[in-house]
Amino acid sequence: MIPGMVGDREGNLRAVEDLDGVSYDVLVVGTGSAGKPLAGALAKAGLRVLAVERHRIGGECPYVACVPSKSMLLSARRHRRQPGRKPDVLDREAFAQAVGIRDRTVRYRDDSEEASGMLGEGVELVRANATIPPGSSRSLRLNDRATVHWTRALVLATGANAVIPPIDGLDPIDGLDQDAAGIWTSDRALSGDELPERLAILGGGAIGCELAEVYASFGSRVTLIEAGPALLGREQPWLGEAMAEGLRGIGVDVRTGTELTSVRPADPGPGVLLSLGDGELVPAQRLLVAIGKKPVTAGLGLEQLGIEPGEGGELAVDARMRVRVKNQVLDDVFAIGDLTALNPYTHGANYQARVVADELLGRGRDADHNGTPRVVYTDPAAFAVGDTERTAADRGLRTITARFDVTGTTRSAVERTLDPDDHRPAGLELIADAGSGVLIGAAAIGPEADSWAAELALAVRARITLQALADQPHAFPSWAEAISAPAQELAEKLRG
Amino acid sequence: MIPGMVGDREGNLRAVEDLDGVSYDVLVVGTGSAGKPLAGALAKAGLRVLAVERHRIGGECPYVACVPSKSMLLSARRHRRQPGRKPDVLDREAFAQAVGIRDRTVRYRDDSEEASGMLGEGVELVRANATIPPGSSRSLRLNDRATVHWTRALVLATGANAVIPPIDGLDPIDGLDQDAAGIWTSDRALSGDELPERLAILGGGAIGCELAEVYASFGSRVTLIEAGPALLGREQPWLGEAMAEGLRGIGVDVRTGTELTSVRPADPGPGVLLSLGDGELVPAQRLLVAIGKKPVTAGLGLEQLGIEPGEGGELAVDARMRVRVKNQVLDDVFAIGDLTALNPYTHGANYQARVVADELLGRGRDADHNGTPRVVYTDPAAFAVGDTERTAADRGLRTITARFDVTGTTRSAVERTLDPDDHRPAGLELIADAGSGVLIGAAAIGPEADSWAAELALAVRARITLQALADQPHAFPSWAEAISAPAQELAEKLRG
Repeated sequence: MIPGMVGDREGNLRAVEDLDGVSYDVLVVGTGSAGKPLAGALAKAGLRVLAVERHRIGGECPYVACVPSKSMLLSARRHRRQPGRKPDVLDREAFAQAVGIRDRTVRYRDDSEEASGMLGEGVELVRANATIPPGSSRSLRLNDRATVHWTRALVLATGANAVIPPIDGLDPIDGLDQDAAGIWTSDRALSGDELPERLAILGGGAIGCELAEVYASFGSRVTLIEAGPALLGREQPWLGEAMAEGLRGIGVDVRTGTELTSVRPADPGPGVLLSLGDGELVPAQRLLVAIGKKPVTAGLGLEQLGIEPGEGGELAVDARMRVRVKNQVLDDVFAIGDLTALNPYTHGANYQARVVADELLGRGRDADHNGTPRVVYTDPAAFAVGDTERTAADRGLRTITARFDVTGTTRSAVERTLDPDDHRPAGLELIADAGSGVLIGAAAIGPEADSWAAELALAVRARITLQALADQPHAFPSWAEAISAPAQELAEKLRG
Repeated sequence: MIPGMVGDREGNLRAVEDLDGVSYDVLVVGTGSAGKPLAGALAKAGLRVLAVERHRIGGECPYVACVPSKSMLLSARRHRRQPGRKPDVLDREAFAQAVGIRDRTVRYRDDSEEASGMLGEGVELVRANATIPPGSSRSLRLNDRATVHWTRALVLATGANAVIPPIDGLDPIDGLDQDAAGIWTSDRALSGDELPERLAILGGGAIGCELAEVYASFGSRVTLIEAGPALLGREQPWLGEAMAEGLRGIGVDVRTGTELTSVRPADPGPGVLLSLGDGELVPAQRLLVAIGKKPVTAGLGLEQLGIEPGEGGELAVDARMRVRVKNQVLDDVFAIGDLTALNPYTHGANYQARVVADELLGRGRDADHNGTPRVVYTDPAAFAVGDTERTAADRGLRTITARFDVTGTTRSAVERTLDPDDHRPAGLELIADAGSGVLIGAAAIGPEADSWAAELALAVRARITLQALADQPHAFPSWAEAISAPAQELAEKLRG
């Protein structure tokens, strides 16, 4: 699609200027995992919807985030299992092949198919910058050349960008050529074709862990630096420790509880020299910064509606995803997706899109952000849902927990007799509210955990009792059997 | 353990005779997937329990059924994925290696570890034939050399044996050396080390499909003969058709709607010559008969208690698993496991054991056989739970259904870009009760379906509404995402 041009269902292209003064039922700003399904659902229901996108139609996920990451992880796993593979040798050929498959998977980051999809659903689409103009009366300026109006709702879904932390040598990095300076963010790592001999990764969350696995599998010497005491810091500590054990098993140098204090250009270059809090110097060709994301609000003119982003840049919303302004909510302005920082996953954004679509289509209900799975697609995969013991305590709940060694399942025993060298960590923990006897959280790691633990997300959301979960037959010999023993243990505790 | 000898927690061995006149709280006949966990649970709770086993402690599952089958399937899958493998060539070396791994997995069919496990739980154990004597007053004869008594309950858990159908040349086969005649049942196939060049399999249920995949993977020419119109006959027909497509994809000659009319010794031998209903003659080294199982009741002396097995040999039970005799139930005689034919899975037997344990420990509740997953561990795996449209109609329910092509998930797209030659069938169908809006059944086939579809078993059992299932966020890009689209479609239908 030509920048600054408008598309409609008939494939007509018009200049942005032609939209000046046009009124829509709903304006959607941002077409990522939140905005795109929302715009489509509303247009299919007969509303006139204009979606505005500054960058790629479809957002980050299909091009430079979840999808290429999964592709690279699958290729990496396959490569690690190659007989005769030398673990410590850079395998540029295999990496190039993986990159080729990745790029086919993401259609070379060309968004025309996603754009056609949206147009086909009846969404009108424009590639432009959107700004709420001063004295706005339900209007939006596009590229400062046209003003469009909404009658029902403005939906903000501009997503989030990688945060570069205020570390000596990294900040301020605006205006710096990050690539030349040896600094990557995940979108750069997931769209480039470079296999660094040494890669440092800052941040032990999902992205840091996934990319550590990818690069280590192809022979990069990866150092994963996490300031907190464990990887996957918001999860139960044992889960992060198991993840670290898994990554160490494939050669990643995991440094938890370690500050990055400064980044200097390597001399001689190229690359960087990192100083760690313990005084150690770590050289690397590249430093991948993956400490988190910050909602994108700059330039939107939110102040015209009295909207003030929170400390992390996020927009506060009520249970219907309407934007909060001080002590009230704006009836006709919604925020969904990473912009809310409430549920920063593709499936979380999809979910919020459904909540707003239902609201605007007259079948509204409150959003329930509980029961959203949090998955790390490493091998073994990590899965978490609902509360941790910490968040439950913050809510004043008394919890009881049960841990289970997933290698104790028959399925694991059968698989490990085939693969005696398989020492991947595998475990499951269930967290119940002692008061209600209901499952409120779970954490799992193990082969196919992204598949078999999904049941626990449903259980948390549907407020299934431990009694019911303990009574549920799990197929023998499937991985899901892992759920039975800790569920029965907790049911017993609750009864006793 | 020495046959005819008794073990107790201290490891003391006594002759069966020494038990004469001893009274137990509970006598358990059979130590398979039903009897073993029940005996263990009761002994751990402090009851005095004697378990009687005629054959192997632990029953069939750990030695000659599910466990070796899963091991062989995993080896077979790995072998199929070997680069450079020739699909049509018998690979005896790879098969022998798989058999070696299988035999290590099943500990060479030695039951001493399972026996130690039971003794460690406090169960007393005797290897003997058990018969209810004439005029029985809560007593059981062991090897016709001792009489033991129960005060609380007798639990029958004798399992089931493969059925040999009344087909010309097969029946009567008693007294015939099956092996010499070229006839196998699954336990023979799963404990031997022979790789037939041509293998015919009679019966397209779970066992027939799994073993077809195993042998075809190692190069056997497999003909799978099923009299019914589709494989997996009790499931939704499309599931059996998808299974057939998958098996054909790895070279199995699938013949549905085909009768086996006679079996003759091949001339020249060895092997058999099969006549099919369409007049075709199929030669094979071996015929594996896998048309079903029949409960084992012969010689138990059930008639002494007035118990008459049903037409299929099964014992009728009430919701507490108490044996029914005409219009009443026996208060103190229970039947569990394959003997009831209610829930013929290892996990179904485990479940029934929990129901009886709870009953005898004073916390009884009715058994709920709904929500038991039915899994075929082929690749792709098949999964079904709850009602089919047929069983729902039999119950007088009006159903609505939604099908989804699982290859439409992002996960599948990513995996198939890596494996463009992956044409394995993948699909999901949800079945809802139009009246209550509740999920009552599901059928799935696809990679890891035994893992990701498990959620649907919980949903069926917990009577989750389609609305709730549609609202459940599934992790992107996991296989479980496949559930969202058909769930939302059904929720929409129910709303509309």
